[in-house]
Amino acid sequence: MMRDVKDILNRVKTGELSVEDAAAELKAQPYEDIGYAKVDLHRKLRKGVAEVIYGESKTADQIAGIVETMRDADQGQIMVTRIDAKKSEALLGLLAGRNAIEADSYHYYELARIATIGDKPEASGIGKIVIATGGTSDIPVAEEAAVTAEVLGNEVLRLYDVGVAGIHRLFDCSEEIMKASVVIAIAGMEGALASVIGGIASCPVIAVPTSVGYGAAFEGLTALLSMLNSCASGVSVVNIDNGYGAGYLAHIINHR
Amino acid sequence: MMRDVKDILNRVKTGELSVEDAAAELKAQPYEDIGYAKVDLHRKLRKGVAEVIYGESKTADQIAGIVETMRDADQGQIMVTRIDAKKSEALLGLLAGRNAIEADSYHYYELARIATIGDKPEASGIGKIVIATGGTSDIPVAEEAAVTAEVLGNEVLRLYDVGVAGIHRLFDCSEEIMKASVVIAIAGMEGALASVIGGIASCPVIAVPTSVGYGAAFEGLTALLSMLNSCASGVSVVNIDNGYGAGYLAHIINHR
Amino acid sequence: MMRDVKDILNRVKTGELSVEDAAAELKAQPYEDIGYAKVDLHRKLRKGVAEVIYGESKTADQIAGIVETMRDADQGQIMVTRIDAKKSEALLGLLAGRNAIEADSYHYYELARIATIGDKPEASGIGKIVIATGGTSDIPVAEEAAVTAEVLGNEVLRLYDVGVAGIHRLFDCSEEIMKASVVIAIAGMEGALASVIGGIASCPVIAVPTSVGYGAAFEGLTALLSMLNSCASGVSVVNIDNGYGAGYLAHIINHR
Amino acid sequence: MMRDVKDILNRVKTGELSVEDAAAELKAQPYEDIGYAKVDLHRKLRKGVAEVIYGESKTADQIAGIVETMRDADQGQIMVTRIDAKKSEALLGLLAGRNAIEADSYHYYELARIATIGDKPEASGIGKIVIATGGTSDIPVAEEAAVTAEVLGNEVLRLYDVGVAGIHRLFDCSEEIMKASVVIAIAGMEGALASVIGGIASCPVIAVPTSVGYGAAFEGLTALLSMLNSCASGVSVVNIDNGYGAGYLAHIINHR
Amino acid sequence: MMRDVKDILNRVKTGELSVEDAAAELKAQPYEDIGYAKVDLHRKLRKGVAEVIYGESKTADQIAGIVETMRDADQGQIMVTRIDAKKSEALLGLLAGRNAIEADSYHYYELARIATIGDKPEASGIGKIVIATGGTSDIPVAEEAAVTAEVLGNEVLRLYDVGVAGIHRLFDCSEEIMKASVVIAIAGMEGALASVIGGIASCPVIAVPTSVGYGAAFEGLTALLSMLNSCASGVSVVNIDNGYGAGYLAHIINHR
Amino acid sequence: MMRDVKDILNRVKTGELSVEDAAAELKAQPYEDIGYAKVDLHRKLRKGVAEVIYGESKTADQIAGIVETMRDADQGQIMVTRIDAKKSEALLGLLAGRNAIEADSYHYYELARIATIGDKPEASGIGKIVIATGGTSDIPVAEEAAVTAEVLGNEVLRLYDVGVAGIHRLFDCSEEIMKASVVIAIAGMEGALASVIGGIASCPVIAVPTSVGYGAAFEGLTALLSMLNSCASGVSVVNIDNGYGAGYLAHIINHR
Amino acid sequence: MMRDVKDILNRVKTGELSVEDAAAELKAQPYEDIGYAKVDLHRKLRKGVAEVIYGESKTADQIAGIVETMRDADQGQIMVTRIDAKKSEALLGLLAGRNAIEADSYHYYELARIATIGDKPEASGIGKIVIATGGTSDIPVAEEAAVTAEVLGNEVLRLYDVGVAGIHRLFDCSEEIMKASVVIAIAGMEGALASVIGGIASCPVIAVPTSVGYGAAFEGLTALLSMLNSCASGVSVVNIDNGYGAGYLAHIINHR
Amino acid sequence: MMRDVKDILNRVKTGELSVEDAAAELKAQPYEDIGYAKVDLHRKLRKGVAEVIYGESKTADQIAGIVETMRDADQGQIMVTRIDAKKSEALLGLLAGRNAIEADSYHYYELARIATIGDKPEASGIGKIVIATGGTSDIPVAEEAAVTAEVLGNEVLRLYDVGVAGIHRLFDCSEEIMKASVVIAIAGMEGALASVIGGIASCPVIAVPTSVGYGAAFEGLTALLSMLNSCASGVSVVNIDNGYGAGYLAHIINHR
Repeated sequence: MMRDVKDILNRVKTGELSVEDAAAELKAQPYEDIGYAKVDLHRKLRKGVAEVIYGESKTADQIAGIVETMRDADQGQIMVTRIDAKKSEALLGLLAGRNAIEADSYHYYELARIATIGDKPEASGIGKIVIATGGTSDIPVAEEAAVTAEVLGNEVLRLYDVGVAGIHRLFDCSEEIMKASVVIAIAGMEGALASVIGGIASCPVIAVPTSVGYGAAFEGLTALLSMLNSCASGVSVVNIDNGYGAGYLAHIINHR
Repeated sequence: MMRDVKDILNRVKTGELSVEDAAAELKAQPYEDIGYAKVDLHRKLRKGVAEVIYGESKTADQIAGIVETMRDADQGQIMVTRIDAKKSEALLGLLAGRNAIEADSYHYYELARIATIGDKPEASGIGKIVIATGGTSDIPVAEEAAVTAEVLGNEVLRLYDVGVAGIHRLFDCSEEIMKASVVIAIAGMEGALASVIGGIASCPVIAVPTSVGYGAAFEGLTALLSMLNSCASGVSVVNIDNGYGAGYLAHIINHR
Repeated sequence: MMRDVKDILNRVKTGELSVEDAAAELKAQPYEDIGYAKVDLHRKLRKGVAEVIYGESKTADQIAGIVETMRDADQGQIMVTRIDAKKSEALLGLLAGRNAIEADSYHYYELARIATIGDKPEASGIGKIVIATGGTSDIPVAEEAAVTAEVLGNEVLRLYDVGVAGIHRLFDCSEEIMKASVVIAIAGMEGALASVIGGIASCPVIAVPTSVGYGAAFEGLTALLSMLNSCASGVSVVNIDNGYGAGYLAHIINHR
Repeated sequence: MMRDVKDILNRVKTGELSVEDAAAELKAQPYEDIGYAKVDLHRKLRKGVAEVIYGESKTADQIAGIVETMRDADQGQIMVTRIDAKKSEALLGLLAGRNAIEADSYHYYELARIATIGDKPEASGIGKIVIATGGTSDIPVAEEAAVTAEVLGNEVLRLYDVGVAGIHRLFDCSEEIMKASVVIAIAGMEGALASVIGGIASCPVIAVPTSVGYGAAFEGLTALLSMLNSCASGVSVVNIDNGYGAGYLAHIINHR
Repeated sequence: MMRDVKDILNRVKTGELSVEDAAAELKAQPYEDIGYAKVDLHRKLRKGVAEVIYGESKTADQIAGIVETMRDADQGQIMVTRIDAKKSEALLGLLAGRNAIEADSYHYYELARIATIGDKPEASGIGKIVIATGGTSDIPVAEEAAVTAEVLGNEVLRLYDVGVAGIHRLFDCSEEIMKASVVIAIAGMEGALASVIGGIASCPVIAVPTSVGYGAAFEGLTALLSMLNSCASGVSVVNIDNGYGAGYLAHIINHR
Repeated sequence: MMRDVKDILNRVKTGELSVEDAAAELKAQPYEDIGYAKVDLHRKLRKGVAEVIYGESKTADQIAGIVETMRDADQGQIMVTRIDAKKSEALLGLLAGRNAIEADSYHYYELARIATIGDKPEASGIGKIVIATGGTSDIPVAEEAAVTAEVLGNEVLRLYDVGVAGIHRLFDCSEEIMKASVVIAIAGMEGALASVIGGIASCPVIAVPTSVGYGAAFEGLTALLSMLNSCASGVSVVNIDNGYGAGYLAHIINHR
Repeated sequence: MMRDVKDILNRVKTGELSVEDAAAELKAQPYEDIGYAKVDLHRKLRKGVAEVIYGESKTADQIAGIVETMRDADQGQIMVTRIDAKKSEALLGLLAGRNAIEADSYHYYELARIATIGDKPEASGIGKIVIATGGTSDIPVAEEAAVTAEVLGNEVLRLYDVGVAGIHRLFDCSEEIMKASVVIAIAGMEGALASVIGGIASCPVIAVPTSVGYGAAFEGLTALLSMLNSCASGVSVVNIDNGYGAGYLAHIINHR
Repeated sequence: MMRDVKDILNRVKTGELSVEDAAAELKAQPYEDIGYAKVDLHRKLRKGVAEVIYGESKTADQIAGIVETMRDADQGQIMVTRIDAKKSEALLGLLAGRNAIEADSYHYYELARIATIGDKPEASGIGKIVIATGGTSDIPVAEEAAVTAEVLGNEVLRLYDVGVAGIHRLFDCSEEIMKASVVIAIAGMEGALASVIGGIASCPVIAVPTSVGYGAAFEGLTALLSMLNSCASGVSVVNIDNGYGAGYLAHIINHR
């Protein structure tokens, strides 16, 4: 934030910039206020990735507004998460209607509930991101993580339904786990998958508890607590069902 | 309770028993009231195992009183749990002082915090009880389970420190687990051991969460919830740190 | 897992098996990967019971795919749990349409929400499994346990609505409880049934808390905690509403 | 509060009372402010029982001050709860030193941690108050209830260690329970005693959860929740370990 | 339970009763097993009030079956709780259709969700039961309590919407509270009403937390905890929204 | 409450008022009992603001009744909170139909779910109330606060979507925050906004946790706990989603 | 933060300030880094009150270091909270030994556990701050609030032990409450005091839950939840036992 | 695990290895069983870092035994965590006494409670690990993380006491945060530091909640939940007070 201060000051000194303009420039905010949202156009510079639109509680109309603001500011590829098929259709309609985007630049990933506008970058990074789930029911969360990582430019290997109840299914994949750049371990119920993978992997393991289960699974709380207490080193945890967060974090680790 | 009714009635009919005596006999309570406790002398018949004295909140004096009552009622071998070394010494002193027991009939298991009076039966039962722990810190709970099972007449195999962070240590013992009659899986932290053993074993697995861990381990709550949600079949759970309960249950399963 | 190693090595030594084939055989995975699931075909050998399909979050189509995979691998009788009447009908339609099964090999137990394909074995085991409930509302969970146990080959005795508010109803059944091989005690609200039965029975008691109740019953949490703290010995606990888990565990205890 | 208004107004009208005196009288506070406490001298009239001094977090000196204030206001027998032996001794010393009380009017009940000053009334009321505990460890809470009830003028019958693990001990006392005016059921762990007694008794049952137990007993929370969900009618609950509250409530029910 | 033993024995002795018949009589169970329920016909003798049918999770058909069983056993007035208007209509149709009851003996209390069959007794008891609520939203729970008490034969005084935010509304009723035989204090949110009434009333106060409120009211948990910690004496608590339990308990206190 | 006592007494003394009338006047309750509610007509005097109608669990008919009672008692502007668009329409219909109000005196704020009847006062107070939200999803709660404050006569400045993930958006508004009379900080998820604003502002900060978020946000509990533990001084907290409460409190601080 | 930018820029333009000096000045941090702490010397300007030293987990030595840093920076009166008598003595010794302060400028408030260095300002502000407690045990928290407010320059009125169990004690003070500028309501157990005061007071009410109580008081959690759900308007809540926070907030409200 | 199979098989085929030796080799366990522990000597190969000894619940004697086992197996530098000064001294005595290590190879870090034996590697990795704390009290946890990272070969930059209450202290370090390879954000209370740093940093942020705080901080639970719900991307969380876990994870990210 303070990095450009010297430059501005120098331009004031040389008369290149008036005091008023300098003050204005210092105040010029790298975001756009569109009433219901202040779109963070500075994030791409600051964090390396443009603001991602959390679609859950926004209307298609609100999302379209934010997309247009970002498009106008050349924020590159745009991602919308937690958007269901119906809202995605509405969004596409709105954007196409306003000629805001070309229809073929829009992609919708149903299982992952993610929409993207613009071109997906080539996969790059240190290595592969391995995404493992305990069961079939964890797949939607896994897909949110996988699509996020792919859209940000990573190669992803999916290992689904390798839970510890049939642990040989997991060990059959131990080579992939050992060679991974990052592993995302996704499980509900007792969440033991994270610990078992954490015992094998030498890379960072991002654990994602899911709300899969019933009774004393308490909608993911048990898996969350279990993963936080993993006896294996190198494991850290994100929020319940937060596939996006895991995919994003895996991306920045894979792009160190 | 009602099983002897017919017999008593028949004896009334034949005049062998007066109405008053019959009523008294029906009321004769199979316990001894010693003020601060009603010693359950009927439990051995009903449950197959005599009442076990929970020593935690009782004074050495109170325990001695209960032991004497049980001795007088020929309840066989007597077990006291949750009794620390100091209280055990006091108890032995009291019992020896009153000539209530012969000193060499008294045994104290320090790690398990269990005292017994009387002879340990020969090991019998269907097979071996395997007791596995996740770490070194779980050993006291494991010993409570192991000594309980041994004292009740079972062969016990101890597999300590086989937690999932170094899962090859566990798999090296997989043959013992597969051949067990019952497995007791004891772990704190995230309690994943129960699920992994549950995925291998074909026998009943009794999971014991321990209060080992810190922070979000919440003194055993996380391990407890994790074990209750085990994705493996055949796993059931007892209270946190309840080694005795697990040992007792393993015993009755092993003696079906 | 390591048991066949010597045999394979011997066959390598004698030239019966090439190095390549041996390595392949050692890697040959006892599961079938059908994309959304890795069907565990090894479980029957390992655990004595084939994988049971948890139907809750799977589509009829996914279930049908897993059933077919198991059928093709001769896994014997197949069980699907947590499948409602409508999904069951769809499943039957799919399987029949693909000629995957003969229609009369399919059975649906509505109250228990269980579907089976294939012949039920004769009842065997050490003795009877007694299933008791505190009230009428606990019956669906009890039926899940009962059908599971029956389908796995056990004789089941149902004692429904014997809660402690009218405890003479329970004591009238005390003989059945005392003679049982295993008792499954199922109750919501305060879950006291488990403790009272635990005080009478000499066999293992599997307690199943149910989500029956309101207010401070907290959808089964109170019954769960209550059962974990049972003052009676020989009681262990499974997850809230987990009738299947209790029935399965009772089966393996009854078949020690 | 408003009951004396008419009387005061009439005396104003008749000139018996000046306006100033009337206002003062209306404001005259039925409590005494001694700085660290406002002693409620009105409670005896309002509630039928004088203020009871909760000794837990008060110094002997503070308690002595309140006792003297109550003595001076002729509040009859005075009760101090949650006062340990050492603090009681100090209190007695202080009161005797100041000649505030005659030494033989002071009674200390060690197990109950209650001190009283003044004469205990004759036992009266509708009938007996039965106090039952699940185990030996619950006795201190039970004594707090029992002494409270006795000191307020009730006949108390103690039934200790009648927990449901040996339920015949309880049924042997069923006649006493059936004839009781009120039953106080005191238990820790799973608290099932309250439900079982609630199923037998026709009188009000006051359930007192205790902090006895370990692990998932959560210092009385499990017993508390269990008792609140009792499937038996006529049961209500007070705070964990609140023997005094139960004894007080039993007293007012027994003196309706 | 044991009270008739002597009588039966005497009849055996005099030959009035054969051994077989005596045993049968001793076994004759005071309940009727109708498959999905074991109707407790003994409760009226034991508890003074016949079994009350909890309608929540039962079908109209199941309820009708239980009603008929109770009718046949002359259990007097029958009460069904937690039955909504639609289920009540279905029940009445079923009962009328089978000529099980006369239509005018059926009463439905919509707000209270209670149905009764048979004549309501005259109001009796020591005095009036006062039922106070904190707000308008608590009225359904209050009506459940009020109708229960009235149906069991008590005079009820309703004081609705007297919460502490406008405490003069409550103090205006202080005379009624002071003269009550029992007070039922019903409130959600912070549940302070119970403490304030507990500070005024000299009779037992039954506190009923309700699930009224939002956010940190946690569906009644906050009110429940608050009421359990009431600083006023004479207050006990029942489950969240348990109007029936409070009404029943108030009845037995009022009929001591 | 006692302030008018002297005046009434004086009037009794002078004969201006009879004893009976005086007693009646003292009893005259400043509320109107309309059966399902006791409308608090005294609150305007006592608290400075008339009773606000909580519309959540009331029918349009009940609300209309309360509005009419307040209108008749000249309570000035009337506010109804937590009333959705449909109920508002019904309410307006009822009030208009009964000629209780003039249609143009009725205002409905949809986002805030607030209805008002009567004229909004001019904005007054010490300064501006700044209302900041972490995200777009918090806007409904913010509008409840904003409309409440405006309707009570305050100037409000809205700063929406200034969450800490793009903290420069917040710092751009630091001048407004520093000049505010009161700040209301509204956020879900981790609620960090309150601490960051609390570190900048010199005025009181009212923190409102919202139920925005998922998983371990636990419907606002996490934000609530976070805000209560704010490391910044001058921050206090109201219930989850309680926009009204924050707006009201801000108003009385702004009108000190 | 940005307020001085224009001024600095102008001075650069006029040559009064070199570019280098200007940049340094902009970077000059208004805090002092003393290794284990970064003393916030800017807070007095920003928040109006200098940084307050939280003494709990700091050594006397560390506190002395921070005090000296603040002294050197002329931060005026310095306050240390959560400092017990022993640590205070050590602190005074250290400061006096180093001649850092004059001994008579040091004040220690034992009950409040607060130490101050420097002169207390004259009491000012809009009016009085009333501090009320439910009981005697809440006094330490109340004193922390009271001393904080007094030290910051407010007049404080203490109303201790006015809990709702003897509500006339509270109403006797209603005039003081009605005339207060701010009320701080401090209570443990069920925390009802906040709601009752909130129903009377027209000023802001700051509720402070305390950890006073036992059992289901859960070390202040119950009072906290209760206060957050207060049915009265104008109440906000701070952390459990946070007397300092309440005193500080009351101060800034009283000095609007 | 299976990687050497082909090699072993080949050696069997060529006769280099007998069948018996091959089987033995396949079974040769990469751990050493010393009774109370199974030292994982394979971990260094598998995870890249040798087993780290968790000293909390182990005696100095047990730790010495494990150290010797690791020394004998040439595991390089050895680390012991959660070891206090006294236990460290005892450990050093034991090891020196047995000539197991040279005294100068032993280092103890008191604040971090870590002991190491052997040479610390040169700092390497992608960049610097920045460790920031909210306050002074968080320093012990921060030192555990810092020493862990340094001992494993990383350059560490400490930014202590930069909490959000004085957020300019944090922003003054923004350049260091922006240039970091990994940031570890450590805070108790409301844990807002993680979100604010997460909003600035472009690298992975590892959040460590600490048990610093009181009341509703719930010994770190609030900070934990807050951090899990961080609105900033790239943040993951480890267990409360788990400095070691954060340091280890930072190391493997910095050495990708």
